Amino acid sequence: MTILQAAAAMREGKTSARQLTEQCLARIRELQPRLNPFITILEVESLAQADQCDRELRSGTDRGVLHGIPIALKDVFETKGVRTTCGSKLFEHHIPQRDAAVAERLAEAGCILLGKTGMHELAYGITSNNPHFGTIRNPWNPEHVPGGSSGGSGAAVATGMCFMAMGSDTGGSIRIPAAFCGTVGLKPTYGRVSRYGVMPLDFSLDHMGPLTRSVRDSAVVLQALAGYDSRDHTCSNRAVDSYLPAQTRSLSGLRIGVPTNFYFDRIHPGIAAATEAMAEAAERLGASLVPVEVPDIAGLNAISRIILFAEATATVEPYLNRRSEFGTDILALFDQGKYIPATEYVQAQRLRRVFQREFASILRNVDCVLTPTTPNLAPRIGDNTVRFAGSEEDARLASTRFVRGINMLGLPALAMPSGLVDGLPTSIQVIGDAFAEALVLRVGAALEDATPHRSLVPPGL
Amino acid sequence: MTILQAAAAMREGKTSARQLTEQCLARIRELQPRLNPFITILEVESLAQADQCDRELRSGTDRGVLHGIPIALKDVFETKGVRTTCGSKLFEHHIPQRDAAVAERLAEAGCILLGKTGMHELAYGITSNNPHFGTIRNPWNPEHVPGGSSGGSGAAVATGMCFMAMGSDTGGSIRIPAAFCGTVGLKPTYGRVSRYGVMPLDFSLDHMGPLTRSVRDSAVVLQALAGYDSRDHTCSNRAVDSYLPAQTRSLSGLRIGVPTNFYFDRIHPGIAAATEAMAEAAERLGASLVPVEVPDIAGLNAISRIILFAEATATVEPYLNRRSEFGTDILALFDQGKYIPATEYVQAQRLRRVFQREFASILRNVDCVLTPTTPNLAPRIGDNTVRFAGSEEDARLASTRFVRGINMLGLPALAMPSGLVDGLPTSIQVIGDAFAEALVLRVGAALEDATPHRSLVPPGL
Repeated sequence: MTILQAAAAMREGKTSARQLTEQCLARIRELQPRLNPFITILEVESLAQADQCDRELRSGTDRGVLHGIPIALKDVFETKGVRTTCGSKLFEHHIPQRDAAVAERLAEAGCILLGKTGMHELAYGITSNNPHFGTIRNPWNPEHVPGGSSGGSGAAVATGMCFMAMGSDTGGSIRIPAAFCGTVGLKPTYGRVSRYGVMPLDFSLDHMGPLTRSVRDSAVVLQALAGYDSRDHTCSNRAVDSYLPAQTRSLSGLRIGVPTNFYFDRIHPGIAAATEAMAEAAERLGASLVPVEVPDIAGLNAISRIILFAEATATVEPYLNRRSEFGTDILALFDQGKYIPATEYVQAQRLRRVFQREFASILRNVDCVLTPTTPNLAPRIGDNTVRFAGSEEDARLASTRFVRGINMLGLPALAMPSGLVDGLPTSIQVIGDAFAEALVLRVGAALEDATPHRSLVPPGL
Repeated sequence: MTILQAAAAMREGKTSARQLTEQCLARIRELQPRLNPFITILEVESLAQADQCDRELRSGTDRGVLHGIPIALKDVFETKGVRTTCGSKLFEHHIPQRDAAVAERLAEAGCILLGKTGMHELAYGITSNNPHFGTIRNPWNPEHVPGGSSGGSGAAVATGMCFMAMGSDTGGSIRIPAAFCGTVGLKPTYGRVSRYGVMPLDFSLDHMGPLTRSVRDSAVVLQALAGYDSRDHTCSNRAVDSYLPAQTRSLSGLRIGVPTNFYFDRIHPGIAAATEAMAEAAERLGASLVPVEVPDIAGLNAISRIILFAEATATVEPYLNRRSEFGTDILALFDQGKYIPATEYVQAQRLRRVFQREFASILRNVDCVLTPTTPNLAPRIGDNTVRFAGSEEDARLASTRFVRGINMLGLPALAMPSGLVDGLPTSIQVIGDAFAEALVLRVGAALEDATPHRSLVPPGL
């Protein structure tokens, strides 16, 4: 069931916040031991919140579509009085005195907080294979990773443990778990959603957004989250659009860019085929497919490494002497960040502007760009490499190859299911112009309505 | 004569653009051999431009106050077809194909370009003792430096070689030569004046502004320069205020902050006394003097060094292997910039935000802050240190101590004469809130009208 379906059922008296919450909790009880998506489960608190929501609705207070909807937050969002670990031993006992802006806004919208989801340690990796809080497993095949860093959110949403789980995305950390778990994942424009109360990784790359079971669900969540917050100095005061796409499937008049370079190189042939099929579906809905040559994304990825590493290490530096409290994989990344000269960082930021202008000029010619989300399927747990298209590649570099450059551009990007290959989900990415989330969501919703992929549910779960 | 006086005289038929230009050129011919403020003098071109201005005015086309006013540009502003050296051997033969936005706007306003002024090599120092284009001398005492990096602009304005000369200010490079030469110098808010076509030093610290002989002249120049320019991505699209202060001297109702810490430590006693006298003058004009404790400016200066060095080295890096083409002083600074880790730069940028917030909270309580511009008088040419208040200090660090932190904050700051000590000018700095140039100029104009310092002219010149 999607958020919109649950909201309708609640108002028809066919279900209640209590019932939805109990169903989610039952699902969590059943699957948490096998898949481990949660770090903290708020059983008592969520049921009390559900009863409160039901009372409000009965007494005529309706907070809107999200009223009474059980959700989860990645453990990077601070929650007042509820432990927030960032998946790290450093913050094992951290109990915040404040709510993140995202937690506040979702609570105001009537969401019920079921718990905090697990993640790659300190949001710095794609496996969510966490040395402190345990391995999170992919619901489609428990031998594979759920993606990361928001792996717990992906696994929880895919299995119906919650209707939505928030993620954070510095180099693909919403879109990669969405792709590997078969859910929708939306990284909004930089500055669209407040980061107040979120444990930072990279201040110029971090974005907050939802993982959901439908595109329209992402739209209603973004509607609740978007807007200015003076407590986050990077938050935009630009007016908030209306995000929920209309029911029409037509994409008539839209120009959708399909890259002629980079995005179909070194890619699993099944993922390439699924992406092309989605592009053809868009064309059948009336869109024009426009071949576009994207800027040198390999170059963008290279400078993204400089900025990502330097900012991440700067963030963690005060703790970096507590070496035994870090997993070895992220410790190696943080150590690499120490040796980047400031001049390289400054040059990278200047080149970033050039790429932003180049991409902006493409987006003057097309409304959005459609790409695969990842070139590879979810890696096997414990494998540092993935094999596809006849070659072997580092799993982290492959999985982030198509997504991490978009964080440098700050553009909105929607990941959504495009099919199944070898029993694992595949995904496309729809990239739009800055603050054009409404258009990206419209394209995504039309494709979702027109293709069978929206109802992807892991077998046997 | 000030710009406003010349403009009035021109409209009363008492002078013409031709006459003003000839007078300036005569002054240049007389003093250039002794003081060396210019790198390029446009004698023929400026006279042709002057005649064109006079024809326009006779035929009823009046471009406003700046119509027919002879000015100069620091040699950091690109001028189409006119060599632009940045005071560097690297750009000895650089003839730009475009005009800087500042050059364009001044030309549109009717200004006549007399030439390009000399500067500290690559705008990276305070002496303007240039190994490629010669030593520039202080018009008050030719054994002393004019300040830098806009030293040629300061010397040219102080001696009546031009009515206004543009400067650029990365760590004090407008305010220091204004202070040492006894002129007014305005560093506007970051983003208020387009930097398109200016040879960069530090992209997050560079500001463009005028040096003039009166505060009101700075206001009319800012009026011509301020405003959005899509070619400079750091340029603000905020509406432009009306800058020219009214004739009233009253500062009634204004709250002027006077620092109780830092700005009166380790300072020449004559400069401290002159600053206090200016504060008292403001009080007599009706302002309330409010003691304020400023944030840790020494700390701000320390992180400013990190950002200034890293960005400057990043800018120059492509040329840094041409070592023989650099002066030894700036080569040492550029080399130091190579060894700053990116993490330090990122931390410095984050701390910068903290200082911005701290200073913003002071500026919620007062309308502006009044400080000395420098703790020292103009150093002697060739001296690397200055001696004052019983101690010896590096000349560059002393001269920039009160000004370079303000570039980190991006706030507008006006330097204006406060008197003479040992035959050399002293100066105060009026710091305002972001985009509050109108208020800063109002305070400056009132003080200028009420004190005898506006008419400071070097003796014997």
